[in-house]
Amino acid sequence: MNYRAVALPIGRLLILIAVFMLIPASADLVAHNPDWIVFSVSALVLGCVGALTTAAFAGHAPGLRRRETFLFVNAAWATFCMAGALPLYSSGLGISFTDAFFEAASGLTTTGSTILSGLDHLPPGILLWRSLLQWIGGIGIIVVGIWLLPGLRVGGSHLFALESSENTTKPYGRIEPFLIRLLTLYGGLTLICTLLYLICGMSVFQAINHAMTTVSTGGYSTSDSSFGQFEGTSVYWVAIIFMLCSSIPFLFLIRSLEAKHPDDRQQILLFGAIIAIASFTIFLSQRWLQHDTPFHLFTISVFDVVSVITTTGYAAGDYLEWGTLVIAIFFLLTFLGGCSGSTSGGFKMFRVALLLSFIRVLLRRMMYPNRVLQPHYDGKPVNPSVIEGVLVFAVLYAGTFAAFGLAYTCFGLDLLTAFSGSITALANVGPGVGSIIGPSGTFESLPDGVKWLLAIQMILGRLEIIAGLVILTPDFWTGD
Amino acid sequence: MNYRAVALPIGRLLILIAVFMLIPASADLVAHNPDWIVFSVSALVLGCVGALTTAAFAGHAPGLRRRETFLFVNAAWATFCMAGALPLYSSGLGISFTDAFFEAASGLTTTGSTILSGLDHLPPGILLWRSLLQWIGGIGIIVVGIWLLPGLRVGGSHLFALESSENTTKPYGRIEPFLIRLLTLYGGLTLICTLLYLICGMSVFQAINHAMTTVSTGGYSTSDSSFGQFEGTSVYWVAIIFMLCSSIPFLFLIRSLEAKHPDDRQQILLFGAIIAIASFTIFLSQRWLQHDTPFHLFTISVFDVVSVITTTGYAAGDYLEWGTLVIAIFFLLTFLGGCSGSTSGGFKMFRVALLLSFIRVLLRRMMYPNRVLQPHYDGKPVNPSVIEGVLVFAVLYAGTFAAFGLAYTCFGLDLLTAFSGSITALANVGPGVGSIIGPSGTFESLPDGVKWLLAIQMILGRLEIIAGLVILTPDFWTGD
Repeated sequence: MNYRAVALPIGRLLILIAVFMLIPASADLVAHNPDWIVFSVSALVLGCVGALTTAAFAGHAPGLRRRETFLFVNAAWATFCMAGALPLYSSGLGISFTDAFFEAASGLTTTGSTILSGLDHLPPGILLWRSLLQWIGGIGIIVVGIWLLPGLRVGGSHLFALESSENTTKPYGRIEPFLIRLLTLYGGLTLICTLLYLICGMSVFQAINHAMTTVSTGGYSTSDSSFGQFEGTSVYWVAIIFMLCSSIPFLFLIRSLEAKHPDDRQQILLFGAIIAIASFTIFLSQRWLQHDTPFHLFTISVFDVVSVITTTGYAAGDYLEWGTLVIAIFFLLTFLGGCSGSTSGGFKMFRVALLLSFIRVLLRRMMYPNRVLQPHYDGKPVNPSVIEGVLVFAVLYAGTFAAFGLAYTCFGLDLLTAFSGSITALANVGPGVGSIIGPSGTFESLPDGVKWLLAIQMILGRLEIIAGLVILTPDFWTGD
Repeated sequence: MNYRAVALPIGRLLILIAVFMLIPASADLVAHNPDWIVFSVSALVLGCVGALTTAAFAGHAPGLRRRETFLFVNAAWATFCMAGALPLYSSGLGISFTDAFFEAASGLTTTGSTILSGLDHLPPGILLWRSLLQWIGGIGIIVVGIWLLPGLRVGGSHLFALESSENTTKPYGRIEPFLIRLLTLYGGLTLICTLLYLICGMSVFQAINHAMTTVSTGGYSTSDSSFGQFEGTSVYWVAIIFMLCSSIPFLFLIRSLEAKHPDDRQQILLFGAIIAIASFTIFLSQRWLQHDTPFHLFTISVFDVVSVITTTGYAAGDYLEWGTLVIAIFFLLTFLGGCSGSTSGGFKMFRVALLLSFIRVLLRRMMYPNRVLQPHYDGKPVNPSVIEGVLVFAVLYAGTFAAFGLAYTCFGLDLLTAFSGSITALANVGPGVGSIIGPSGTFESLPDGVKWLLAIQMILGRLEIIAGLVILTPDFWTGD
């Protein structure tokens, strides 16, 4: 194992995080909030640690090989969550380190579950840091998802490695040209979203924060009532459009903007179909039950569906009061997630599409056992190893969900809180189901052990489970 | 499609069911209960229908080919559930046909969910018919599971087709020698179980009924309080032993008795390990909470775990009052089921064993992408098509569970009743979770639509899902 190859990029990225920390420091300085010292000192400490690491491991670093890549993604998530938690722990919030780590992990993984309440009265630095964590996490997730995981053949993601190996985003190949386009697009989306939010009536601070947590499909808000604080429907539609943009493959967006013929349409079409069906079902089931104008109700239905399926997790009203059918739909949507190569988490649409195609093929094979029948994606036949990866991911996804849910019941949580908490963390959505961790609640009252496990689940979700499990095997540490 | 090959065995089996119906008819005649006429007339009607079918399709019947086998298993389940429901519907119970069909389907699939209450005061004919349905269903399930499904390569079950093709139980081969041994074993187990129940203090009628529903892992009882009506611990241990016997592969039992070296040990070991862990966890979690002697509490813990994991579904006390950890354990045990080639349903142990082996291999493959690593079962390498079948089964199992659960919430059921009802029917266990369908409740109050869907799920569970889905594809009906 070449630890230099792992430590060097982590050290450099720590310096970058320290630089970002100067933004909330400035905001608190302007607002005369004493937390500016906390953010400045945290930035200094992390900057020094980063610089020392970089210096200690300086020299020619070989590229990340397989084993080092696995170690890197795990170590990076752990380090950056610690780093993100440092100012939250030291600030005037007075929260425990468990809570600070949970909040930072929930931010960086763009989950959006929070242990904080009274957000409306928090100083600007803390709020801005939470939004920044999600914004930074979002870009990190896209880079890892497009660049590192496909090369590792995790969970069927090499479907996209094969495809993209003909392009600039070849795994382990030159990342710079791709990174520049990605940052331009991500920054551009954030900017346009901020402007549109401003036009729809948000304050400058609200617009910047919500834009960052929208394009990262994170879901942190500056108010306890989340999007419920905004009136009218225009602000909801802006959020819907940008949540959707951030949940479709960024490569698709980049190629579309460059007027190249983008492939990978199938998961986007499926994504649209599921959103349409779920939104209309909820709208129709509530149409004669609620005293609301049809258009406003429709807007809220679409907003809540998009918020959950894109794994953002904003809330507009408590949909848990809309009856069991609606609760069940949201519970199941929590599993799904958006498209691959985006900031959204969950099971992901390409896997749903592949599974559907494969089950269709399998049922035909039942009839014609001797015919050669192959599943297709986007009109092209799919390699069996991709299907196998997807199937295994499905099993691990269900297994992780069940195992952690069971663990939460050991801490005395009720079934709904335990299992909806398990899936909302694993799929990086944010709110769960039930009165405690539902869209109107917070994770504050949960036992510390549950918070640590939830944070681990969030990170596992971002590592597509398998990349996290690999480092727990003896082979990883003893192998050649 | 050769309909003769399908209709002929169904006609013959209908006559057999009519003959069995004479048993409850005799019991009611002896007890001077007017239902003896209902059972006799039902037997006459079904006997005539069976005889007419046999006569109409008489002549040389070609063996069941692939397509006809699929049609046969589906048509057989539907016909026999109808046949079993006939006397229940016409009897003095005064229940709707929906309820009668539900009860018969729950019986024949050895699920054991019931819509009846006040069992203790029912006439002997009805009680005996319910037990007989489970006993007949049990033997049918073993025959289908060992003889038909492996040949159809359903859900990875051809693992056992390959193995058994060297033996007398070759799919589509000569079934008679195997059937005789199987019937001897099944009958022998029932007889010994009856005797032991008698020794433990049951009445003759209780012993016969409970023996039939124990060896079929069915779970119907002659009392609303199920096994809660019995005192002492010996009767529980008899039930535990015979539920376990009926949940391990019958081929394993037959070979062990013939002093041949039986293989297929791995799923049995895994089965034992899971039961031990679950029982001890529940025992320890309740040890200082309940005012009960340690041995009695231990007995009840083991009994309830074995009852649920073998998909029997007897209840001894309401374990739903034992806290969320215990509820969660029982909810998850409901998914698992026993071993293949037995009367138990659910996901089945060989699939769990194969998945565990495969995930281990997969994690090693992550490290060594170029090495040839293969999953093993029982010390032998496993064909990739078996693994694929198991993975697809896992996905369909989860998908069917979720889809039906969602459908139940449309009828206004709460989440716990809807989703635990969905899995208890699909895995053929019996009781669900929650106050309505939990071990102390009945399915009586559910809407009719839910009852039909639950009955369909029970049958789907017995067809390992895939064999039921196949006949819904257009290919099945239009293909050559």
